[in-house]
Amino acid sequence: MERDGRPRWASVGILGLGLMGASLGMALRRAGLVAPGGLAGYDAAPRAAERARERGAIERACATAAEAAAGAELVVLAAPVLATRELLDAIAPHLAADAIVSDLGSTKAAVAGWARELLPHPGRFVPAHPMAGRERSGVEAAEPELYAGCVWCLTPDEQTDPDALARLRGTIEALGARPLLLTAEKHDAAVAAISHLPLLAAAALTLAAGESPEWPLASQLAAGGFRDTTRVASGEPRMARDICLTNRQPILAALDAYLDHLQRLRALVAAGDPAVERTFASARRVREEWGRWREARG
Amino acid sequence: MERDGRPRWASVGILGLGLMGASLGMALRRAGLVAPGGLAGYDAAPRAAERARERGAIERACATAAEAAAGAELVVLAAPVLATRELLDAIAPHLAADAIVSDLGSTKAAVAGWARELLPHPGRFVPAHPMAGRERSGVEAAEPELYAGCVWCLTPDEQTDPDALARLRGTIEALGARPLLLTAEKHDAAVAAISHLPLLAAAALTLAAGESPEWPLASQLAAGGFRDTTRVASGEPRMARDICLTNRQPILAALDAYLDHLQRLRALVAAGDPAVERTFASARRVREEWGRWREARG
Repeated sequence: MERDGRPRWASVGILGLGLMGASLGMALRRAGLVAPGGLAGYDAAPRAAERARERGAIERACATAAEAAAGAELVVLAAPVLATRELLDAIAPHLAADAIVSDLGSTKAAVAGWARELLPHPGRFVPAHPMAGRERSGVEAAEPELYAGCVWCLTPDEQTDPDALARLRGTIEALGARPLLLTAEKHDAAVAAISHLPLLAAAALTLAAGESPEWPLASQLAAGGFRDTTRVASGEPRMARDICLTNRQPILAALDAYLDHLQRLRALVAAGDPAVERTFASARRVREEWGRWREARG
Repeated sequence: MERDGRPRWASVGILGLGLMGASLGMALRRAGLVAPGGLAGYDAAPRAAERARERGAIERACATAAEAAAGAELVVLAAPVLATRELLDAIAPHLAADAIVSDLGSTKAAVAGWARELLPHPGRFVPAHPMAGRERSGVEAAEPELYAGCVWCLTPDEQTDPDALARLRGTIEALGARPLLLTAEKHDAAVAAISHLPLLAAAALTLAAGESPEWPLASQLAAGGFRDTTRVASGEPRMARDICLTNRQPILAALDAYLDHLQRLRALVAAGDPAVERTFASARRVREEWGRWREARG
């Protein structure tokens, strides 16, 4: 259904109403992309679903995932990755024949595999991952602007229904985000380097500092550098766990490259070698080039 | 000299007019802590000194460090750590007999040692390190608000003149910062954990991502998590080098604790062990406790 050239859904079910799911509901409603009364939601925590309704992220809070998905034209799974498998299993018998299903999960190959295994029409499942997040999680942190300007990965395969992909893509564009098509494998390797590895690095950095005998003093001195470098360590532990469990090989490859760089830096520091400046200069070049590119993109 | 209960200096020389030194000049002037016409500055790059004068960070740009320090009541060294040694050497013969000298350097034991070795009155040198910084460096990034609310470490020893310490302390408080007294050794161990290690971690993370075959794609997906975790990799390579060269043992200790945590995380990921969630939960606890404490402090 289209109106004014914008894709519009008669009914949408959002499964999982944390930061990502609730923000999506708010964004869809604000952009007028769902017919009035058509936005249902479910969360494993009934209180979260109720709060999502109170905050305007959904119109109807459902008691089960099946209820929120039943008859919906679009179903979006917005839960930690391992919960996505359970949700696919729970909704499969209740999906409308022509329902389009997508997700917002952090890893894609595993999710795509489960969809092939569990859904009646795997071709109408479009694996997706918007590159958006916040330090805070949960429905209270949700905001309709979360996805504005973000890159929204879509990882269709040769089975994917072109119409399902096109409709989802139109919706993402209507939300002001940038759809990017790539394979699930490329997605998983890329996010291992720029999202999952930073998660591990930040957690280890926080623990190394927090367990050091200097922490009572060091915590008073810690300022902007520590705050930013460890920010993502404040994320949901369960989400991080699911990322680790469903993207093992790419994460290990990224982590090993990282450990290698750290060991080289260690050797330079131990030797008191002034050449350590070159390492910092190379890193600065990469970081600034990326920053400029990002700024230019807007 | 005091006026309205505020410490006031007849003359101040700031040696090094990058972000830190130029911001200090702006802050001192704005708070009325230097007598009119009393603020001189020097930078190894004459253009930076001129820009500092144009921006109101100093009143007089000097051609040599000796000239900026000669006769000044207070001399502040605001250069990368290794340049501080050269500056101490250059100004020693020109200091007024009762001059108070301080610095803003990232490591303290090395600087204190050089002051003992090179200055005519080492007791009137008060090693200092304000915990403030910005992603951008240089005189153009300077701002009078840089030090507002920051913790300003002072690492006097048994030789330090109590009057010199008290006057400097009063100035720091008048700038709206929080003086914190500790030993040079404790300072260096603490900043290794919360400032130097994040610097190494961010540089290695940037290089691991930038050198990965996925970078052309990954750089497009990188968002807020990557931006924050790698922010400090944009800092001055020379400053990072000097930190590594003058704080080796504390940095190696912090780095080894970090590598240990990363290896433990690696083992959990490789084994597909759901217990990895506990590691992330511990890190989150430490990070959030610190964040709350920091917010409460204001």
